[in-house]
Amino acid sequence: MRVFIPGVDGYLGWALAQNLASRGHEVAGCDNFARRAWVEEMDSWSATPIASMDDRLRAFKEAFDQELRFWEGDLTSWDLTKEIFEDFKPEAVVHLGECPSAPYSMIDVHHTVAVQTNNIMNTFNLMYAMRDITPRAHLVKLGTMGEYGTPSVPIPEGFFEIEYRGRKDTLPFPRQAGSFYHWSKVAGSNHIMFGCKIWGLRATDIMQGVVFGTRIDQMGDDERLMTRLDFDQCFGTAINRFVCQAVIGHPLTPYGKGHQKRGFLPLRDSMQCLTLAVENPAGPGEYRVFNQFEEVYDVTALASKVQKVARDMGLETEIHNLVNPRQELEEHFYEPDHQNLFDLGYRPEGDVETETRLMIEDLLDHKDRIEEKKDALIPDVRWDGRRTRSAFV
Amino acid sequence: MRVFIPGVDGYLGWALAQNLASRGHEVAGCDNFARRAWVEEMDSWSATPIASMDDRLRAFKEAFDQELRFWEGDLTSWDLTKEIFEDFKPEAVVHLGECPSAPYSMIDVHHTVAVQTNNIMNTFNLMYAMRDITPRAHLVKLGTMGEYGTPSVPIPEGFFEIEYRGRKDTLPFPRQAGSFYHWSKVAGSNHIMFGCKIWGLRATDIMQGVVFGTRIDQMGDDERLMTRLDFDQCFGTAINRFVCQAVIGHPLTPYGKGHQKRGFLPLRDSMQCLTLAVENPAGPGEYRVFNQFEEVYDVTALASKVQKVARDMGLETEIHNLVNPRQELEEHFYEPDHQNLFDLGYRPEGDVETETRLMIEDLLDHKDRIEEKKDALIPDVRWDGRRTRSAFV
Repeated sequence: MRVFIPGVDGYLGWALAQNLASRGHEVAGCDNFARRAWVEEMDSWSATPIASMDDRLRAFKEAFDQELRFWEGDLTSWDLTKEIFEDFKPEAVVHLGECPSAPYSMIDVHHTVAVQTNNIMNTFNLMYAMRDITPRAHLVKLGTMGEYGTPSVPIPEGFFEIEYRGRKDTLPFPRQAGSFYHWSKVAGSNHIMFGCKIWGLRATDIMQGVVFGTRIDQMGDDERLMTRLDFDQCFGTAINRFVCQAVIGHPLTPYGKGHQKRGFLPLRDSMQCLTLAVENPAGPGEYRVFNQFEEVYDVTALASKVQKVARDMGLETEIHNLVNPRQELEEHFYEPDHQNLFDLGYRPEGDVETETRLMIEDLLDHKDRIEEKKDALIPDVRWDGRRTRSAFV
Repeated sequence: MRVFIPGVDGYLGWALAQNLASRGHEVAGCDNFARRAWVEEMDSWSATPIASMDDRLRAFKEAFDQELRFWEGDLTSWDLTKEIFEDFKPEAVVHLGECPSAPYSMIDVHHTVAVQTNNIMNTFNLMYAMRDITPRAHLVKLGTMGEYGTPSVPIPEGFFEIEYRGRKDTLPFPRQAGSFYHWSKVAGSNHIMFGCKIWGLRATDIMQGVVFGTRIDQMGDDERLMTRLDFDQCFGTAINRFVCQAVIGHPLTPYGKGHQKRGFLPLRDSMQCLTLAVENPAGPGEYRVFNQFEEVYDVTALASKVQKVARDMGLETEIHNLVNPRQELEEHFYEPDHQNLFDLGYRPEGDVETETRLMIEDLLDHKDRIEEKKDALIPDVRWDGRRTRSAFV
């Protein structure tokens, strides 16, 4: 299948290109290298050194015996989007070309507007390109579990049947996102749901949990095939950041009370799930929602797991909670469904402990890189607009 | 009270400035004259001739004995937004600076992106300016009843309490908008709800029905105080367009089966309601939602009312349905609440028949203007992307 990956240079995009190529798909991608620039702006870098795109493309060709067609550019440009679709004629699009950071979107008005503009407008370009050029293509859109927030009722996959004042309807499940980044994802979900309805587009909207892990098997020993692994306050997510902290003996830092519950999944499971979605497309006009995570964890329980694995590997580290820079519930009910992907055949491949061990092995080689940028581990982007470095609780 | 009106040159904005000034409020406004340009792009113009902003400002001063402070410019500029807030320090903001047209947003990818960019990004600028410069100001934001779509259950005002799988929560009522314009309004609602939560902003989100009417009493006989009245396919709404059609003896044109139900209200009621919201502000951190309409009508029943009033005034006209250029339910359940404004003291001032009679009187003077641009009455912007003029059913 011809699969186009906007954001192919990113954490998920670079791994997905390899996962799909290893299964015989023809892969093309586009990137404006925004992620590299954003992480640099946070005065950080990837813990794993990442190759230039030229080197990545050479390694890709050697490993998978196919050229990855690559366009450098910004998909908020309609002309570029159109050119790619007319040239490559994708059968599937996995849209990873969005800014994925809640804190980055909350820095100030300019960052809010930049994140929203990028995420919402390039999605429109992709939808219109599909409508006009490849109407039978299937869009796999990355949403986030964070769209739902933390309601006091169970979270279905996208839609729920309710009874209200004696009448029944099946409605989109209400969204209560927790940052302007998360709200940009809600907008994307809304627009795609509507595009499927009015234009007959085919789409799978992935409400993904937090992804962690340094690698998938396809990367082997070739450093050029390694994907990025961020640990800064904006682009480093919970487990990845904890593991980087453990590697340099820095305390692990849950925010606030630390009992936020979230769905998590290893990078290899994320790749399995996205590939399942690509290989089992939605039907014409179908808008389906998958909640994509392996299991729900309490953030402090995760920190303890990371601490334990690190200790077993001879790395001593403490858990010290930080004042929460976000505004979110720190203890709450959380019961999201995640059956659809299991029905398609998803079988979790790793557990947190095994994955953490592999991550520590990978990251010990790059301990100095984390050490050099360790200031980036402590958040100072607050939801109230002040820029104050969080103190330990 | 110092009230700032983004979009003060528009249909509602120009009327609201007068309504507020006549009640002793100090009014300032901003406009980039986008509405004038959009209507010109549709090869149309306002049925009522509208004065230049210079002439409007002179007439305003004469009539209300106060200068209306006016900034010409685009509120997607943060610098301009900041300048206005630092200078005028509004106590209330009534945000009318959005593109209000569903069909205009559906023309093509460029129009979708332009409408969404304008509506979403200038709202962010206003929210950040409130947070940073006038944190006690009250934002009255224009949403639309169209955010809710036409669910099979009654529509509450913003939120509903539900029981789901044995647990209860009060959640935002799900949105099922019917155009990318309507989805931009949903985004605005979401962002403001979140801004109230995290920054303690005060906001009233108005889910407004379709407004009709040529005037409010304050305009008197001064043509420079008249507001615009559009009849083209993109900016002319149901009753306004029907009345313009009746005035030139053109058939009234409901779309499809013509049994779409919507909430409607006269311009004078809209002004009354917005003024009630301004004069009874939400509390700190409060995000409240008002469904703002006088009554729900079936579109064909409205066409019949207009036809009857016109006939009584000697104007013969037919009702001929057009092929629906939109994708929407043409027969459906519709039961929205609208209690909150009544609780604040809203008393409907006019009925459809009386208002229609006044409109016909006003518009007969400008019959030639409608005649000259009558091609603009028939839609050719279709939701499926084709640009085909709708035929009679």
